[in-house]
Order: sequence, then C-alpha cells, then structure tokens
Amino acid sequence: MSQVTIGNSEFDRDTAVTRRATGVYEAHLSAGWTIIQAVNGGYLLAMMGRALGDALPHPDPLTITGHYLTASEPGPAVIRTEIVRTGRTMSTGTASLIQFTHDGREVERLRVLATYGDLGALPDDVRTTAKPPAIPPYEHCLGTDNAPDTPGARPAIPGSTEIADRLALRLDPATAGWAIGAPSGKGEMRAWFGLADGRDPDPLSLLLTVDALPPTAFDMGLSGWVPTVELTAHVRQRPAPGPLRVAITTRNLAGGFLEEDTEVWDTEDRLVAQSRQLARVLQTP
Amino acid sequence: MSQVTIGNSEFDRDTAVTRRATGVYEAHLSAGWTIIQAVNGGYLLAMMGRALGDALPHPDPLTITGHYLTASEPGPAVIRTEIVRTGRTMSTGTASLIQFTHDGREVERLRVLATYGDLGALPDDVRTTAKPPAIPPYEHCLGTDNAPDTPGARPAIPGSTEIADRLALRLDPATAGWAIGAPSGKGEMRAWFGLADGRDPDPLSLLLTVDALPPTAFDMGLSGWVPTVELTAHVRQRPAPGPLRVAITTRNLAGGFLEEDTEVWDTEDRLVAQSRQLARVLQTP
Repeated sequence: MSQVTIGNSEFDRDTAVTRRATGVYEAHLSAGWTIIQAVNGGYLLAMMGRALGDALPHPDPLTITGHYLTASEPGPAVIRTEIVRTGRTMSTGTASLIQFTHDGREVERLRVLATYGDLGALPDDVRTTAKPPAIPPYEHCLGTDNAPDTPGARPAIPGSTEIADRLALRLDPATAGWAIGAPSGKGEMRAWFGLADGRDPDPLSLLLTVDALPPTAFDMGLSGWVPTVELTAHVRQRPAPGPLRVAITTRNLAGGFLEEDTEVWDTEDRLVAQSRQLARVLQTP
Repeated sequence: MSQVTIGNSEFDRDTAVTRRATGVYEAHLSAGWTIIQAVNGGYLLAMMGRALGDALPHPDPLTITGHYLTASEPGPAVIRTEIVRTGRTMSTGTASLIQFTHDGREVERLRVLATYGDLGALPDDVRTTAKPPAIPPYEHCLGTDNAPDTPGARPAIPGSTEIADRLALRLDPATAGWAIGAPSGKGEMRAWFGLADGRDPDPLSLLLTVDALPPTAFDMGLSGWVPTVELTAHVRQRPAPGPLRVAITTRNLAGGFLEEDTEVWDTEDRLVAQSRQLARVLQTP
C-alpha cells in the first residue's frame, strides 16, 4: 500500500474536483462519508473548499461559511464558483454545490461564501489566551477499536456510519455517556481526531474536522438527526502533523435550534480552527 | 418630537432601502453611523438584512454572514439580492452592497449570505445553559453622558465618532481601562446597549448591536483600526423591549488576525443573538 500523504489519501481522493471550465468543477460525493445516511457536512465543505482554492488566487480558506439547503446524496455533482473580489493578501468567492434530479433538474445542495489567504505568509505572533481542552490522553479515550467489550459500551450511532471507517476518533469518556444511555446533559463533545489512513491534517481537512464528531445533542439526551443549517469555520493556522483535539460546546438550545461551537487544537497546542454551526433540533427536547 | 418606535426612528430611517425592481434596492449610507471614519459594519449588515427581509418570503434573519470587501463610504449605494432557495420554514438569499466610483465603475463593498425564518413561529422551549454576562448595573457603567469629569476618563475613541451619537452605550468599567491608558489585557468588552433615540431592539437592530462596541483590541493595548473581514450572526429570539447587555471576548489573537465572540442578552435574560467576527490586526501587537 502506498504511503499515505497529504494529497494521496482517502480524503484527497474523495474530495477531488475536476475543473471543466472556468468556475465549473465536476465532483463525486462519496458514500464513504455518510452518517445516519446523510453525506457529512464537513466533507462537503472541504470539497467546496478545494474547488475555491483552485478558483481563487490564494490557497487557504481563512473564513468559510456554508448554508446547507437540501440533503446531498452520494453520486455525481457539479460545483460552480464565482470570484467576488481578489486582493493582494485575500480573495473572496462563492461556490454552489449542484446535483440533478432524475428528470435533469438542478437542485442546489450547499451555498458557500469564503475569503481565502495564505496561511503560510501570516506573521507568527501568537497571543492566544484560549487553552487546549481538558481531554484525557489518547489511550484513555473511546474509539471503535478500543471500547470495552461490554454490551452497549461501544459508541453506537444509529443508521449508516460509513464515515466512522474513514476517521480515527477517540471520544472523551466524559462526553460519551450517551452511548450507554447516560448523557451528561452538558451539551459537550470532545475527541481526539485523525484520519483512519493516517493522513496528516491540513487546512482543507480542518473543514471536515469541525463537523466530524457526534452531535452534542446526543450529550443532551436528544436522539436522531440534528441537521446543520449553516456552518462558519475560521482556519487560523496550518496544523502541525499528528492527532488533533476537538472540543464542541452547545450553550443555547432554544426555539428548535442549537449552536455548536467547535475548537480544533493541534499537537503544538495551537488553536488552528474555530467554528460555529446553527443546527435544527427536529424533535421536542 | 414624534414617538420613537420600531419603524420610526433614526435606525429605521438610516437603514431604509427602496425597491426599484425585483432584487434591486436603492440605499443611502448615512454618515451618522461612522466610527474612525469607517461606516460601521453592523449598520451595513442591518441595512442588507432589511433588503433581504423584503426579498425573501420569511421576515427574520436566523443566520447571516457578511464578508467586508472594500471600505464603504457615506453616500448612495445599491443592494442587489438573489434568492437561493425558498422553503416552508426557511429561505436563503444573498445580497451585494455596491457603490460607484467617480467614473461610474461598480465596487462591491459587502457580500452577504443569509438564511431567514420566522422567529415568532419558533417553539418556545428554552434549554439555554449560557448565563448572562457579569456586568455592573446600568448606572455604574460608563457612557459619554456620565463619565467622571476627570481628564481622559471619558472613553475617547480617536477620529470621527458619529455613531456614538446614535447609541446609548454604557461600558463596564472593567473593560474601559483602555480609555485611561490602562487596558486590562484580557481582550474583553462589555456594555449596556440601546439606541440613543430610545427605539426598542428588534431582529434587524441586533445586527447593528453585534458590531457596535469598541474593539476588544483596545482592551489588549492595541490602538487603531481592526477591520472586520467576516461577521456571522445568529439571531435566536425577538428581543424584549429595553436595554441589551453585550459581552465580547477575544481569545485567539494570532497571525495578524483576531476573533470577536459576541453575545447579546435582553431584559428577559434571553440570549437573543450570538456572533463571531474575524478581524485583521493592522499593527504589530
């Protein structure tokens, strides 16, 4: 098996886009990144981010927002990009993810608005006051490969969990009680995150990472789908190699919506990405 | 003087838009909402929000993102809106704020992507775990009308502060030390917020509110302009009448950028809006 590297991995293969004309890309939404039969939103955002990185003169997403309009399906797709503005250090663009109905009508799945820059060209001052999450060491966290062999102890997410095979997730036990019917009620989710094939993180894979953990709703005793309406991610630093720590918090579940605030920390204790999504709660809490 | 109400106030007059055709609105950017000679970003977002509320079949912004492309100037402007998707409970649209150079070229100032709904139709469950900010009572906070009569004690923002006359801001003294050369270094800003003419808040004015306080950069000992690159606001509830409490935190100043996380609380202790902006720091910290 060939050495997995950034550019040569499952994630890169499954988020690849092919430019057919200026601003027009072919893509294929892989069934390998579904959860509860929905194509993972972070996987879609990363694919759109790849197209925008090709369309814009700057390589890295600095701030990227996606509005999830209709449910994507595994299969062919088209991405259309538009350049909004190009500047010396930053550029802005939009992207639309389109699929086609049986009778050939276009349906837009996702609309993205993003500003790109060059993370490698940023000054290296760091005055971050935020602290990495308090998460137990990797070997003390729960994954599909080391959960205790007790009934129900393996974090079980109902429905298809194809994406689970693409990821190396180790959940903080304090945020995995829901898997044995004992949610903490705090609305938190923390995990070590890696890609199953060992690919190191990069700015595009961070767009997947911010939406790759189980929903905080599970930790609040809610079950079922909590679809993302909108997600905005800030990519602040190219991540160092190695596993990431992801911490998600929900503090405002109200009116049938909740927010998920996510921080992603790398092995150098840098806060490499922050995101917030607005999601709908489709059941009475 | 006529009774100031929602719909009949400085804010409504100065954010008014006139539809000229489907998806085309005339607007006038008022010089009354400038700070350090820049037109306030929240004021612009509110104006765009008004246009989108007219263009879309749902009245209230639920989640709205703006990318600030070039500096707006007081004077005429055009807003172009596009409907992205209309649904039963939510609709999505984009808006572009355009101004014209002396030789008639179009320059885009701001691109917005937003999803709208009906805040009045949301279920009234509240499981918010966030708590209102610890801010002293209104009468113990510092505003331009009650600052102690000592040299330098009045919060002084260099440059034009036209917007200060539109707002009734009372800063938490713990976050106003910068005004007397003693910033706390914590990157926090808290204030009571109202409109100077007494207009009660509503979902559109919340879009102004999330960007209406002095920058947290002042509290970190930085001076000068900290321009917003992108701002995303979630409006979660129609606010109750009366003054709002606004709390802003910066935890990730690095690489020439910082984030400002804002919460807006109403008189009923509801977390009515949350926002995060990415801003550039244009000096060596």
